[in-house]
Amino acid sequence: MRTGIATVCLSGTLKEKMQACAIAGFDGIEIFEQDLVTSPLSPEQVRGMAADLGLDLDLYQPFRDFDGVTPDLLKANLRRAEAKFALMSRLGMDTILVCSNVATATIDDDGLRAEQLAQLAGLAGDHGINVAYEALAWGKYVNDYEHAYRLVEMVDHPNLGTCLDSFHILSRDWETSHIEAFNPEKIFFVQVADAPKLSMDVLSWSRHYRVFPGEGQFDLAKFMGHVVRAGYTGPVSLEVFNDVFRQSDVERTAVDAMRSLIWLEEQSAQWLAGNAPEGTPAAGGAHRRRYPMELATLPKVNEPAGFNFAEVKADDTAQLEKLLGQLGFEFEGRHRTKDVQLWTMGQARVIINEQAASHTEPSIAALGFDVDSPVIASARAQQLKAPVVARKVQADEEVFQGISAPDSTEIFLCQGSPDGTAAWTHEFGEGLEHHGAGTSAVIDHVNLAQPWQHFDEAVLFYTSALALEPQPFAEVPSPSGLVRSQVMETTDGAVRLVLNLAPVQQASGHKTYQEHIAFAVDDLVATARAARDRGLDFLQIPANYYEDLDARFDLEPGFLATLKELNLLYDRDADGEFLHFYTATVGSVFFEMVERRGGYNGYGAPNAPVRHAVQYDSLHP
Amino acid sequence: MRTGIATVCLSGTLKEKMQACAIAGFDGIEIFEQDLVTSPLSPEQVRGMAADLGLDLDLYQPFRDFDGVTPDLLKANLRRAEAKFALMSRLGMDTILVCSNVATATIDDDGLRAEQLAQLAGLAGDHGINVAYEALAWGKYVNDYEHAYRLVEMVDHPNLGTCLDSFHILSRDWETSHIEAFNPEKIFFVQVADAPKLSMDVLSWSRHYRVFPGEGQFDLAKFMGHVVRAGYTGPVSLEVFNDVFRQSDVERTAVDAMRSLIWLEEQSAQWLAGNAPEGTPAAGGAHRRRYPMELATLPKVNEPAGFNFAEVKADDTAQLEKLLGQLGFEFEGRHRTKDVQLWTMGQARVIINEQAASHTEPSIAALGFDVDSPVIASARAQQLKAPVVARKVQADEEVFQGISAPDSTEIFLCQGSPDGTAAWTHEFGEGLEHHGAGTSAVIDHVNLAQPWQHFDEAVLFYTSALALEPQPFAEVPSPSGLVRSQVMETTDGAVRLVLNLAPVQQASGHKTYQEHIAFAVDDLVATARAARDRGLDFLQIPANYYEDLDARFDLEPGFLATLKELNLLYDRDADGEFLHFYTATVGSVFFEMVERRGGYNGYGAPNAPVRHAVQYDSLHP
Repeated sequence: MRTGIATVCLSGTLKEKMQACAIAGFDGIEIFEQDLVTSPLSPEQVRGMAADLGLDLDLYQPFRDFDGVTPDLLKANLRRAEAKFALMSRLGMDTILVCSNVATATIDDDGLRAEQLAQLAGLAGDHGINVAYEALAWGKYVNDYEHAYRLVEMVDHPNLGTCLDSFHILSRDWETSHIEAFNPEKIFFVQVADAPKLSMDVLSWSRHYRVFPGEGQFDLAKFMGHVVRAGYTGPVSLEVFNDVFRQSDVERTAVDAMRSLIWLEEQSAQWLAGNAPEGTPAAGGAHRRRYPMELATLPKVNEPAGFNFAEVKADDTAQLEKLLGQLGFEFEGRHRTKDVQLWTMGQARVIINEQAASHTEPSIAALGFDVDSPVIASARAQQLKAPVVARKVQADEEVFQGISAPDSTEIFLCQGSPDGTAAWTHEFGEGLEHHGAGTSAVIDHVNLAQPWQHFDEAVLFYTSALALEPQPFAEVPSPSGLVRSQVMETTDGAVRLVLNLAPVQQASGHKTYQEHIAFAVDDLVATARAARDRGLDFLQIPANYYEDLDARFDLEPGFLATLKELNLLYDRDADGEFLHFYTATVGSVFFEMVERRGGYNGYGAPNAPVRHAVQYDSLHP
Repeated sequence: MRTGIATVCLSGTLKEKMQACAIAGFDGIEIFEQDLVTSPLSPEQVRGMAADLGLDLDLYQPFRDFDGVTPDLLKANLRRAEAKFALMSRLGMDTILVCSNVATATIDDDGLRAEQLAQLAGLAGDHGINVAYEALAWGKYVNDYEHAYRLVEMVDHPNLGTCLDSFHILSRDWETSHIEAFNPEKIFFVQVADAPKLSMDVLSWSRHYRVFPGEGQFDLAKFMGHVVRAGYTGPVSLEVFNDVFRQSDVERTAVDAMRSLIWLEEQSAQWLAGNAPEGTPAAGGAHRRRYPMELATLPKVNEPAGFNFAEVKADDTAQLEKLLGQLGFEFEGRHRTKDVQLWTMGQARVIINEQAASHTEPSIAALGFDVDSPVIASARAQQLKAPVVARKVQADEEVFQGISAPDSTEIFLCQGSPDGTAAWTHEFGEGLEHHGAGTSAVIDHVNLAQPWQHFDEAVLFYTSALALEPQPFAEVPSPSGLVRSQVMETTDGAVRLVLNLAPVQQASGHKTYQEHIAFAVDDLVATARAARDRGLDFLQIPANYYEDLDARFDLEPGFLATLKELNLLYDRDADGEFLHFYTATVGSVFFEMVERRGGYNGYGAPNAPVRHAVQYDSLHP
């Protein structure tokens, strides 16, 4: 698959954008006109730079408001087009995007439109230029991709074809299978964009909220499957207008963009393998037909089977050790070659890393996931352009395959074991003698704070590299603003990761943002009592909460009293019940203990505002 | 008018919110349930604190999903309500907001709804509580304020009335005049919120984009006029869910909120004075009838007649002096008692303030506006809670009435003169001898960068204190993100102020944001030539821009060559033409020279991306 990206997706100058696209590995780019008009580079310099960088200049865009106009306006439009064709010759470009008229069309007549497009195609032909005509979702008269294609067929000129843009098609819920019937020689260009499903006017949605494939909710694999079956072989190019990407680091956004196409390529191949063309038998036959476009594949991974460990880091780890000890974790000893400690409760393993630079407040540093094959999973992640994390190992020690997540958390791909143990724990020396049978526990979920510039990138990262599934996002009120919360899970819930996007910090800048690790136990009340007896500093839940809880759930008085006594929070839904409590925060980390009863599958969302408010209160005494 | 505000409008804890509301001068507050549930304060402590702060506790809210339910659910809902009534007694509160059912209603029958609301009203009566029933714009069966009122009439219970919320009514475009027919004793509460007109689902619009009155596009004066005519005398209370206000400084947001109610009160009185009730003669008669609600008025001001001066500040002003001199400004001398210089071109006056602290980069410090009466205008601004700016004056010097704008720019209210001169210029000593007849010029517009937390506040500030009119906002692409641009003008265009909201700065933090002052001249080409001859450092416009300009406008070649030679930008619309150029930036300031031909009324918006890109380029060489 030939990969492309429109310069409008990225921040910076044309030069910065082109360099970032080359570094990220794109085959070509679309030049968004404004990026050229505002650039000090001459067309010849742009052409030379593209050649030096190994970038094809695939599409010049957009040419607006051409068709369905009065004769006077047509004349001016043809003059304007000719100037652009001359410019494109200097750039060495051969394809221009013409989008359906939004502003100046006054005549709704396909015959007239075809006649005007034919004149444009003729002029383009004289300059060796191809016109890719696209239906904008909000075009005045032409807003349906099949309508645009019919016009192309009516004109029937070698220099006129259509451009298919997934946003303009999927935002209107047009049926995409009809693409398969298109003549591939008349599909001049394909643009892809994903988007969250929002109910707003389609123009605002398009201009602000597009995201890269895998970061939204469109079925792009199916769209691409139909495009491939139609026989299209040209570039598949990203055109994503996004308020955040326009502000973010250009090189990083380009890598995020490239990752989305690599992932889309794989998903499209999978869709094609799993979906026979209509009218042919589902198995054995035509769906094995080869299409001209080659779709590269990635090393395959399944969902992770669980968390292998979580790692916290600080230069002074005393508070972390104290908290874990009070929660009931056992100290299992120090690593034989590194300054790290292992603490466990059942199968929940926490590494305390003492190697942090001085003045490093406690924070979550790394997460280990159990995968079928760390080597294969790592190869996949690297093909998806995840940065590799180097970790020093000595002979005989387990080699951890590590990658860096968008928020810089280190992600280690570990060899899982059927019994939930981890071989590397033998690298740790003797710990303290265990003071009992030990509580059964696992890591239930981890909640990571995401920088606002990298939230969508993080969703795609965990989707593509770790096969986690994004759930519908929620918004939680906090005293310092709404917190956007995105759950990424495995189908069986064995891995649950919560990505939180905190409100933009105020200039006055209290650190209002915290991350946490939650552990699931079988008997939360017993765990809480034991922790209290060990002197744990619980997050203090206001009495008002328990009154409201009782008003909502009509709880048994003894149970309510226990919740209140132990600072436990409670939730209930049709599937089951959820009990949980939080520790105080050290640095940017706190811990949560949870008990899931029945089929409860949530995170106590109604209680999240209480947690935020109490944590805020403790920072604003 | 009794003023109120819901705690959900503000950031922080309940305690912080209450204190801020008291400081801002509100009569009462609505307690948003979540703020109480998450608070460590007991209901009795909240009651005591409100009493100490002089705040009435006007409304407890919201109580959701009560009506139209099955018998089982009704029982649970009544139990839940009774718990809240008991809580309200502890708070000393007597009114609860019950909003129409969104989630759990399954029976669409007004008879049943009325029966269930009657039960609720009866239970409320037992506790001395009044229920204010409100139609949410997205209520499952009840989403129209007249429907809610009909139910209240059907039930006809002394403890059941309705709550009117301007957002739920105006977002649905319901006709508001019908409010006048309501029995005022059945209107238990009135909530007001403004909003920009957006086309998106009404729930998202409501939850994220509400703003304070005067910051959006709803006709709230008319809404309030009908409410007043109905005979309502209770609190008029703000309920504004806004993502930015939730993150902003609580005390400042509370003052912004209070300002919006003071302004709304005045606007409502004006609407009442200008709009006779239907069915009565327009003049003389019933519209002079007094309504029970007293509406306070403000000192009246007209639009400013023009800019009196602009002031720039730095600790080293050499670069500013050089730029102004090259543009053709004349040095008119130093002030006799202060370290400030006066520079003029025609009636455009620029004060260069040398009194800045060391290491202060050049920036725009103050703007003077010509008003009919500075004293009256200042009194109005102060009643609107604008902070006063103190400026030291000596005997015989003109006293400047100053207020501080939300972005800290000092705004001075000056005595205008019919001939456009300013008396205070005589306080300046002798300047250099003038080298010619002098160019005729005025300040055309000023463009100020606004911090993202205070953008809406700034719109209301200039609307209410200076009688500027907000125009539809625009978004301009720049290499570091979209720039939101809001023009505030007088009807005659004599004062034009552009408020720009820059993209949130990246952590890497180049200063990408700049402000400028634009001067209008009669002959821009001559001005530019003279400036070039004096060595002015023009903002360098890319050659690509002129090619695109020619493609768009088919310009006369000689004219195009002149534009290109002098780095002039050009725009044209149905009303006229616009020529302009920019200087390089010093500190955070640059200057623009413009020539308006014909009735051109814009700002060269199509050229703004070029300006942003070139300025960005100069910061990223």
